Amino acid sequence: MTADRTDPEAAIAEAAARCSNWGRWGDGDVLGTLNFLDEAKRREGAALVRQGVSFSLAQRFDTNGPQKGWRRRTNPVHTMTDTGADAALGLQGFPHGFGGADDVIAMPLQCSTQWDGLGHIFDHGNAWNGRPAERVVTAEGDQVTGIEHMAAHVAGRGVLLDVGRVIGRDGELPDGFAITEEHLTAAMEAHGVRVGRGDIVLVRTGQLARVRRDGWGDYAGGPAPGLSFTTAGWLHRTEIAAIATDTWGFEVRPNEFDDAFQPLHQVVIPNMGLLIGEMWDLEALAAHCADDGAYEFLLTAAPLPITGAVGSPVNPIAIK
Amino acid sequence: MTADRTDPEAAIAEAAARCSNWGRWGDGDVLGTLNFLDEAKRREGAALVRQGVSFSLAQRFDTNGPQKGWRRRTNPVHTMTDTGADAALGLQGFPHGFGGADDVIAMPLQCSTQWDGLGHIFDHGNAWNGRPAERVVTAEGDQVTGIEHMAAHVAGRGVLLDVGRVIGRDGELPDGFAITEEHLTAAMEAHGVRVGRGDIVLVRTGQLARVRRDGWGDYAGGPAPGLSFTTAGWLHRTEIAAIATDTWGFEVRPNEFDDAFQPLHQVVIPNMGLLIGEMWDLEALAAHCADDGAYEFLLTAAPLPITGAVGSPVNPIAIK
Amino acid sequence: MTADRTDPEAAIAEAAARCSNWGRWGDGDVLGTLNFLDEAKRREGAALVRQGVSFSLAQRFDTNGPQKGWRRRTNPVHTMTDTGADAALGLQGFPHGFGGADDVIAMPLQCSTQWDGLGHIFDHGNAWNGRPAERVVTAEGDQVTGIEHMAAHVAGRGVLLDVGRVIGRDGELPDGFAITEEHLTAAMEAHGVRVGRGDIVLVRTGQLARVRRDGWGDYAGGPAPGLSFTTAGWLHRTEIAAIATDTWGFEVRPNEFDDAFQPLHQVVIPNMGLLIGEMWDLEALAAHCADDGAYEFLLTAAPLPITGAVGSPVNPIAIK
Amino acid sequence: MTADRTDPEAAIAEAAARCSNWGRWGDGDVLGTLNFLDEAKRREGAALVRQGVSFSLAQRFDTNGPQKGWRRRTNPVHTMTDTGADAALGLQGFPHGFGGADDVIAMPLQCSTQWDGLGHIFDHGNAWNGRPAERVVTAEGDQVTGIEHMAAHVAGRGVLLDVGRVIGRDGELPDGFAITEEHLTAAMEAHGVRVGRGDIVLVRTGQLARVRRDGWGDYAGGPAPGLSFTTAGWLHRTEIAAIATDTWGFEVRPNEFDDAFQPLHQVVIPNMGLLIGEMWDLEALAAHCADDGAYEFLLTAAPLPITGAVGSPVNPIAIK
Repeated sequence: MTADRTDPEAAIAEAAARCSNWGRWGDGDVLGTLNFLDEAKRREGAALVRQGVSFSLAQRFDTNGPQKGWRRRTNPVHTMTDTGADAALGLQGFPHGFGGADDVIAMPLQCSTQWDGLGHIFDHGNAWNGRPAERVVTAEGDQVTGIEHMAAHVAGRGVLLDVGRVIGRDGELPDGFAITEEHLTAAMEAHGVRVGRGDIVLVRTGQLARVRRDGWGDYAGGPAPGLSFTTAGWLHRTEIAAIATDTWGFEVRPNEFDDAFQPLHQVVIPNMGLLIGEMWDLEALAAHCADDGAYEFLLTAAPLPITGAVGSPVNPIAIK
Repeated sequence: MTADRTDPEAAIAEAAARCSNWGRWGDGDVLGTLNFLDEAKRREGAALVRQGVSFSLAQRFDTNGPQKGWRRRTNPVHTMTDTGADAALGLQGFPHGFGGADDVIAMPLQCSTQWDGLGHIFDHGNAWNGRPAERVVTAEGDQVTGIEHMAAHVAGRGVLLDVGRVIGRDGELPDGFAITEEHLTAAMEAHGVRVGRGDIVLVRTGQLARVRRDGWGDYAGGPAPGLSFTTAGWLHRTEIAAIATDTWGFEVRPNEFDDAFQPLHQVVIPNMGLLIGEMWDLEALAAHCADDGAYEFLLTAAPLPITGAVGSPVNPIAIK
Repeated sequence: MTADRTDPEAAIAEAAARCSNWGRWGDGDVLGTLNFLDEAKRREGAALVRQGVSFSLAQRFDTNGPQKGWRRRTNPVHTMTDTGADAALGLQGFPHGFGGADDVIAMPLQCSTQWDGLGHIFDHGNAWNGRPAERVVTAEGDQVTGIEHMAAHVAGRGVLLDVGRVIGRDGELPDGFAITEEHLTAAMEAHGVRVGRGDIVLVRTGQLARVRRDGWGDYAGGPAPGLSFTTAGWLHRTEIAAIATDTWGFEVRPNEFDDAFQPLHQVVIPNMGLLIGEMWDLEALAAHCADDGAYEFLLTAAPLPITGAVGSPVNPIAIK
Repeated sequence: MTADRTDPEAAIAEAAARCSNWGRWGDGDVLGTLNFLDEAKRREGAALVRQGVSFSLAQRFDTNGPQKGWRRRTNPVHTMTDTGADAALGLQGFPHGFGGADDVIAMPLQCSTQWDGLGHIFDHGNAWNGRPAERVVTAEGDQVTGIEHMAAHVAGRGVLLDVGRVIGRDGELPDGFAITEEHLTAAMEAHGVRVGRGDIVLVRTGQLARVRRDGWGDYAGGPAPGLSFTTAGWLHRTEIAAIATDTWGFEVRPNEFDDAFQPLHQVVIPNMGLLIGEMWDLEALAAHCADDGAYEFLLTAAPLPITGAVGSPVNPIAIK
């Protein structure tokens, strides 16, 4: 990276100016780069279904997850309000042998496999499309760009770029490895795929495979391979609709400045309007792609339409 | 219905015996009728995408939902752990103008648009496939048939049966209306579609349109149109993979016995292994189908893989 | 009330100026009128214990409470993470016959018997002691006057003023009844007690008895008897440490202005620093006091020290 | 200890038989040893208030607590539903300059300073007073001995036994140190106090001071000083009403058998009906007692009356 490591603010401002999509889809826009994902793209995605095999790209949601409390992010807490034991013991008060189990969950929307909503990150008090952050995300939630607006949209052509397998050793990139445009290009060439307008790009680093083997460690927030700050231009120029990784934070950690926190987020969410997915489980899909050499597929990844949410857990489904 | 209204237990036992799928997919089965949904069916579903238009079939998840506390079912409570106001005021402590918003949700898994997992209902202490309920769903959750096992599977051919439009007045069936096999057949004929092995069937009653207009009232648990108890045979014989409605409880309410509670659930979940969806929003999809006359589509409706859950909120996506 | 019913803002400004305690206990104060409750007052309270009989002044915390969702206030949701059924069935995996039950609660801190913290209400963006509201209560909680600071303090002399019994019919004031200084004085005279510096005053209206009999109705936020806006001077002059009522909102509802919301709160919390308790259950205590004529007692009402909270559920204990 | 380290089950059975209080207070009892705490004892407690100084014995409830997820026990998660920032920015929609902050908590009832309810522990499927565990604690909570029954009772004479200061080095007992009857007696002699019927005994080990200094480590569930299994007889014979410690689990950890889990709990809760407090913060109180030599005081420690709960967070108040 040629940027000055000591001045993230200047680098962010430069990239934000260069990659801004403010106003591109009108003043009232609530979709950002999802606007690139159109009906033609969905037909193209559907046409990629050849075998009919489907993959879930979600991690399991439970207390054995990576969260350790930072920003009050815990792992999901799932509790039962009725159980089979009570039913078996006839303690539920229902007629004719009926029994039931019910359950409840409490979880941060950023705790596991997720989409970052457009209200998740701000740049100097500005939210997506140049709106003032305090008007967009109040204590009652995102009043403008809540994730519910994306409910029907995230279905189209998915492309896996398995940078871990193409560039890494034993299929894994080391923590701190910054994925540049060159690496993305190398992966596309190795896979024989192109990425363009309206695509949903999945970047596999292999870190999830590593922490599955070695323990979570600092998966949530610690060192990780990820997108280089320098890929902002590629992310903008390709006009992709969304991108997701198998890491906690999408971009490389530690960040590529001396004192910084997720500078690429600050460029691509509020300025570019890019939809970012994190903590996706790409392992089974990637193994299948490596096997048959087909790295494109139909992808649906519909967020739960939680009104005013700045993110959503998601179970993305890839169908080849 | 020819069954004795005073003896639901006998009617349930008879239907359960007739429609049981216990052992059909082996002792270890955790999928039930989802086993019918195979790769060929997914290819068939994908081939139905002609325009590329997509529909979310989920209601919004927020405090304005229908729940009133029965069985400790509340509406979702969504709270912010960081907001745009704090970011705008520079109170978050991040460098270089970075700001962020985070959020949390607490909700019963049965509060809104959802799948019922196989561990959700028991018949005389028996869970799906003949397992003892107390061994399946403990206080720690469903140890055997947790919804996480379905994570990759629910993608295939969807068929809408708009019984409300075909049989009802102004597109709506009245509360208490029992949808029989004849009504389902009439809808298929009116729409020019067939339903068979591995399909995901969506039955629209029009009740959701009504409560949207008139207020929730007793949508959660009160009188409603829905499947007649007598459709158990049809549900079994057609070998569908799953079925969902726009009502709280899938079957007609009040139930068709003098003193009963959800007798069709008791037959189809623990005995047949049928995946049931409830509180789906079929309005936009149904309007589009009425318009273009095409009632079949690709449907993906992936539950969140909450480990051990007996149900899951879901945002189903239909693509035509 | 002589105030202009059409101009609450002027009336509030006037009362706030007259009753302000800003700066009275220094710039760093986090206790407000709790400063009046000193060691001598605690000795005085302890000396009031004659019989040794104790009363809980808390309502029960469960889903059968009064909340209906306003400001996302729900009733408490209590769920079990382990149960006796699992223990009895030997499913918990503990050695030597050990079994256990555990539980979880999710609740708004303002849902039932509670203290309002000093960060709960603001006057034109000002929090207690003249601090800017946005600096005091961020998305991470009350950074200055969190309820945890009061943890050790709320123990002293309690005085019950049973205005419902003294003034009302059958022991109850009607909804909309504004309790004035004259009514408070009449109650003190009827009971033979005085109220002064450092006391914790409990005002019984009888509304809780009524809703217990007739159903919650609009207990949470609807019409209610309560303190008149005109009592601000009395609340200030008496130098009481705290005051609590058996109603949802302490002051009379509807409020005594044409278009207003809790104007007395706006005076007494941010300007006076008064600790307010709401939804207390004074029934058993009041019956005992009516019986033996003794209306003063030792009162401990320690909030849970939830870091940064703007309120706390509480189980106050009165000992006579 | 003379018990066979390899046979906890026999030792527990023997101690349970010897120390059982089943039937002592009738078949319907829901209070256990709290029955020992009578009005005379409350008068005795009140008479101990000499200075009027009060101490909170609760730890703070926040995400910086000791829980790490075992049995789905997390630290409390406190979130704001309204903040000062929104109020300051005028975004709340209230009239006349009114602003407000509200908040919500989600927490296991066993996460921090707490009382164990009588339904918290079972012995071979038996709950307190010989009731079958599955009838007492269902998925809906404790149907018989819920903590709400104790709401008015826990106020009386408290006695601190600072075993850490009397026996330990620098005021702290090492992890794994088993406090025996001899140590308790030594502490009473050193402090010049007696313990008897109806008292609430607080045992300080000093472990909390240590983890405050060194970090939580395995405070929740790991090695700790605590009551020896051999103290069951003393706990029974003294007829104390309740006992609490500054440790996670009241009894010594590791337990004094080769393969065991909290064997003393199994004796004293279901068999003796003893009320146990855990994770209390005795530091400030202990320092004051060491200073003035007075180790007895009025103690109120009212659980929140959460209906059907098997435990409760609590902010105990000691007044000297």
